[in-house]
Amino acid sequence: PQMAENEALSRRQKVLTIDTMNANIKKVEYAVRGPIVQRAVQIEKELKEGVKKPFNEVIKANIGDAHAMGQRPVTFFRQVLALCSYPELLDDDKFPEDTKYRAQRILKACGGSSIGAYTASQGIECVRQDVSRYIERRDGGVPCDPDNIYLTTGASDGIVTMLKLLTAGEGRTRTGVMIPIPQYPLYSAAIAELGAVQLNYYLDEDKCWGLDISELQRSLQAASKHCNPRVLCIINPGNPTGQVQSRERIEDVIRFAAKERLFLMADEVYQDNVYAEGCKFYSFKKVLYEMGPEYFNTVELASFHSTSKCYMGECGMRGGYMEVINMDSEVKAQLTKLVSVRLCPPVPGQALMALVTNSPQPGEPSHAQFLKERTATLGDLAQKAKLTEEILNTVPGIRCNPVQGAMYSFPQITLPERAIREAKEKGQAPDMFYCMKLLEETGICLVPGSGFGQKEGTYHFRMTILPPADKLKILLSKVKEFHQRFTKCYS
Amino acid sequence: PQMAENEALSRRQKVLTIDTMNANIKKVEYAVRGPIVQRAVQIEKELKEGVKKPFNEVIKANIGDAHAMGQRPVTFFRQVLALCSYPELLDDDKFPEDTKYRAQRILKACGGSSIGAYTASQGIECVRQDVSRYIERRDGGVPCDPDNIYLTTGASDGIVTMLKLLTAGEGRTRTGVMIPIPQYPLYSAAIAELGAVQLNYYLDEDKCWGLDISELQRSLQAASKHCNPRVLCIINPGNPTGQVQSRERIEDVIRFAAKERLFLMADEVYQDNVYAEGCKFYSFKKVLYEMGPEYFNTVELASFHSTSKCYMGECGMRGGYMEVINMDSEVKAQLTKLVSVRLCPPVPGQALMALVTNSPQPGEPSHAQFLKERTATLGDLAQKAKLTEEILNTVPGIRCNPVQGAMYSFPQITLPERAIREAKEKGQAPDMFYCMKLLEETGICLVPGSGFGQKEGTYHFRMTILPPADKLKILLSKVKEFHQRFTKCYS
Ligand SMILES: Cc1ncc(COP(=O)(O)O)c(C=O)c1O
Ligand SMILES: Cc1ncc(COP(=O)(O)O)c(C=O)c1O
Repeated sequence: PQMAENEALSRRQKVLTIDTMNANIKKVEYAVRGPIVQRAVQIEKELKEGVKKPFNEVIKANIGDAHAMGQRPVTFFRQVLALCSYPELLDDDKFPEDTKYRAQRILKACGGSSIGAYTASQGIECVRQDVSRYIERRDGGVPCDPDNIYLTTGASDGIVTMLKLLTAGEGRTRTGVMIPIPQYPLYSAAIAELGAVQLNYYLDEDKCWGLDISELQRSLQAASKHCNPRVLCIINPGNPTGQVQSRERIEDVIRFAAKERLFLMADEVYQDNVYAEGCKFYSFKKVLYEMGPEYFNTVELASFHSTSKCYMGECGMRGGYMEVINMDSEVKAQLTKLVSVRLCPPVPGQALMALVTNSPQPGEPSHAQFLKERTATLGDLAQKAKLTEEILNTVPGIRCNPVQGAMYSFPQITLPERAIREAKEKGQAPDMFYCMKLLEETGICLVPGSGFGQKEGTYHFRMTILPPADKLKILLSKVKEFHQRFTKCYS
Repeated sequence: PQMAENEALSRRQKVLTIDTMNANIKKVEYAVRGPIVQRAVQIEKELKEGVKKPFNEVIKANIGDAHAMGQRPVTFFRQVLALCSYPELLDDDKFPEDTKYRAQRILKACGGSSIGAYTASQGIECVRQDVSRYIERRDGGVPCDPDNIYLTTGASDGIVTMLKLLTAGEGRTRTGVMIPIPQYPLYSAAIAELGAVQLNYYLDEDKCWGLDISELQRSLQAASKHCNPRVLCIINPGNPTGQVQSRERIEDVIRFAAKERLFLMADEVYQDNVYAEGCKFYSFKKVLYEMGPEYFNTVELASFHSTSKCYMGECGMRGGYMEVINMDSEVKAQLTKLVSVRLCPPVPGQALMALVTNSPQPGEPSHAQFLKERTATLGDLAQKAKLTEEILNTVPGIRCNPVQGAMYSFPQITLPERAIREAKEKGQAPDMFYCMKLLEETGICLVPGSGFGQKEGTYHFRMTILPPADKLKILLSKVKEFHQRFTKCYS
C-alpha cells in the first residue's frame, strides 16, 4: 500500500512538463548534435561492448572539431596556457622566453595575477587591445577601438547576445532576422529561442553558393508584411556551404543593408580558412570602411570571431570576440551591463584569444615553429578541401561545389523516388534517412542537409574536411560505395 | 558640404536604439558590477595617472573574487591544468604522479586527447561521474545518477538555463519566480531578461537572515492573482546575507514546495563555506531524500555548484554543474537539446570540476599539500568572518549579523535623515550615496544594499570578507571611521 501510494504521488503531474515549459525552446533544433550524432555515440558504445558491425570505428565528420579529428594544438598556445595555469613553470628552462613574456603579460592583467580571477565582463583590457591591433593589421590599417571589442564564450555567445539585444516587438512588429539558407543552425536555434522571426534568403548553389542581392530583396519583401526585418546575418566563409564571398558581393550586401536599414551581423569565424585560388577573405569591416564615410559612419555592424576554427581549432576553450561598429552609445551601455550578469568569459579562452591575435613575431624564439605549425595545418586543410570536392564529384548522383573555404563540403545528392517515399512514410527527412543508413552501414557520421535548410526538393549532406588525409580518403570512398549501393537498392 | 552630408547621414536614426532594443534587457540590473564598480575602475586609472587622492589604492570588497583578493590557487588543481594544457609536461619529474594520472584520465576522455576539442554538451562523461560520486559522498550515500548532472559555464549558466526552461505563459499565466530578498542579483537580472515575474520573499534579518515559511506563504498568496508562481529559489549558504539555513528550515521549505507545487532551485555554490559553530551545510537533495519517498520521488529540484567559490575560488575558469532531480524525461531531453546549441562548457572548467569533486586521497602524493592548502583557506575565511562581524558591530549605527557562511557580511546601516534627503534629491538610493562617498573618500569599494533588495526603509551594504586579514582590518577600521564621520557630517 505504501508502494502504491508512492507511485501515485510520483505519477502526480510535475510542475515542469513538456506542456508547461518554455514553448520557444521546444522549437529549437540543432542538427549538428541531433539524432544522428546521438545514434553515433550509441554505436560507439556498442562497438566497445563487442557488438559486431560492418565497421570497426565511427568516423565523425559531423562537426567542425579539429582536435577531435587529430589536429595537434599549436605548441606556442599551449605552452603559454600551461604557464598561465601554473606560473611556477616560469622558472623552467624548457619554455621559450617569448612564451614566458606572453604569460606574464596576461597574468599581470589578471586580478591577483591569477587566471582564476573574474575579469572585466567585456574581457581583459590588454586582450581587447591585442584584438584591436590584430583587426587593424588584418584590415590594412582600418582603425579599431578596443572599446568596441567584447570578448565572448566562443562566437556562439556573441551571436546569441547580439540577437538578444535586437529582438523586440510583438506580432507584426516582431524583429525579423535574415539568415542564409543553408545556415549554421545556431542562428535558427537562437531565433526560435528568442521568439524572433526567421527570414530565409537562399544561397545560389549553381553559383557556388554565392549571395544574390535580388534574393535578399525577395526575402525582405516577403517578410515585411508580417514582421519587422531588422537584422541581416552573413556567414563568410560559409558554414555549411564552404563558399568565400567576393569583395563585390560584400559591397552589394552593405549597400543593401544601408538602403534597407538592416543591422549587419558578419560571422567571420573562418577568416583564415580560405583555400581556393582567386578567393580571398575580406572582412565586412574593411569593405565598409573602404566604401567611404557615408557607409562607415552609419551602417551598424557586429562581426564575430572565435578560437575554435581557422588553424587553432581550440573549440573547448570557448574563446571568441565580437566587434561592434556604429552601435548607439546607449545600446552599448546596455550591452555592457547585460554581459556583466554572466560575470566574464572563461579566462583561458581570453588568454588564447590574446595569443591568436598577437602571435609570435619574426625574431621571437617561438616564431619559426609557430609558423611551421600554422602553415602545415592550413596547407593540409587546403589539400583536403580539394580532395573532398574531387572525389565526391566522381560519384554519379553527388554534385559538390568547390570547398573554397571554411571546413565543410555540402554536396547535393540525388535520391531515388522510392527512398524518398520510404523516408516520408517513416516521418523522416529523406536525407536524414540516407545519413542514418550511411551511419548504420559504414560508421560514418554526417549531418543531413535538412538540418541546415535547403531548397525544397533538394537533398544534401554536410561533411567536414577535418579527418586526417588517409582517413578522409577511406571515408570518401566509403561514401562513394554507399551512395552507389543506396541508389541501386532503391531504384 | 561632403562633411555636412556625412554628418547628416551619421545622425540618421540607427536601427538599434534604446527605444528599439529588447525591452526586457533594459530592466536588467546587476549591482555587483554597477556604477560603484565602474567609478572604482576609473579611480584606479586616476591613481595610476598620478591624481592625488586621500588614499593610495582602491580596495575592492564588492565581489566574491578570491584570487583577485590574493588567495593563492590550489597547487594540485593548477598542476593538473598545466598538464592538460601542455601534455608534453607529462614527462616532467616536477609533477607528482597523481597529477599526471588525473591529467591523463581527463585527456583520454577528450576528443583527440585534447582539451581543445568540443565535449559532449552535457559535459565530459567521466567528469559527470566524478561529480555524481562526490554528491553521493557529500550526502552520505544518497544515490546520484551521472545522467542528471549537467556541467555548466559557472553556476550562472546553469541557473539562467533552468529559469529559461521554466519561463512560460503570458500576462496572468506568466511564470512567477520566488527569490529571497536580499538576493544575489543574477536572479533578478535573469528574471527581467526572460520576462518572468519576480516574487520577493524577505529573509528575517532579526533571525540571522533565517527563512520563514509564513513569509513564503505571504509572498505566494500575494502573487497568485497576477502570475503563475512555479519556482522557488533558495541560496544557501546565503549571498549577500551569509546565513546558513538549518536542516529544519530546509525541511519546511521542501514541504512548502511540495504542497504548493513549486519547482525548487537550490543555489549551493557556497557549500564548503560554513564557519559558525553549530552551523552545518545540508544539501536540499540529502534532506529531500531523508524526508522519504513521497518527497524524494516527487519534488522537482535543481541544485547548482561552481568552481568559483568554496576554497577553490577559481572564478575565471567558469566551471560549474547542476543536478536535476525528478525532472520530467521529455523536459530533460529538451534541456539536453538546448545546451547543445552552445556546444559545450569550457573544458578547463570541466577539468577543474573533476578535480574539485575527485580531489587527492590519503596516500596519494598530492594529498598532504592539498589538504593543507584547503584547510588554510577555509580556516582563514572563518577567522575573517568572525573579525568582520566583531569589528562592524563596534560601530554605533552599524549592525551586523554573524557571518555564518559564504563570503559576505551584509550589515544594516543607520543613515541620518539629512543624508537620506540629500541622496533622494540626487535621485540616488541612500545607501548608494553612502557607498559612493565611502569610495571617493577612502578608496573602499562596497555594494549598496539596494543592489540586492532590502526591506523598505532599511539600508545596508555588502562587503566580502576576502581581503587578506591585514588589509581587511584596515578596510574595517576605515569603514568605521568613515561611518562616524558621515553620521556626524549629516546629523
Ligand atoms: C559559422 C559558425 N559560427 C559560429 C560557430 C560557433 O563556434 P564557437 O562558439 O565554438 O566559437 C560555428 C561553429 O562551428 C560556426 O561554424
Ligand atoms: C549565490 C551565487 N550563485 C551563483 C553565483 C555565480 O557564480 P559563477 O557563475 O562564477 O559560478 C554566485 C557568484 O558570486 C553566487 O554568489
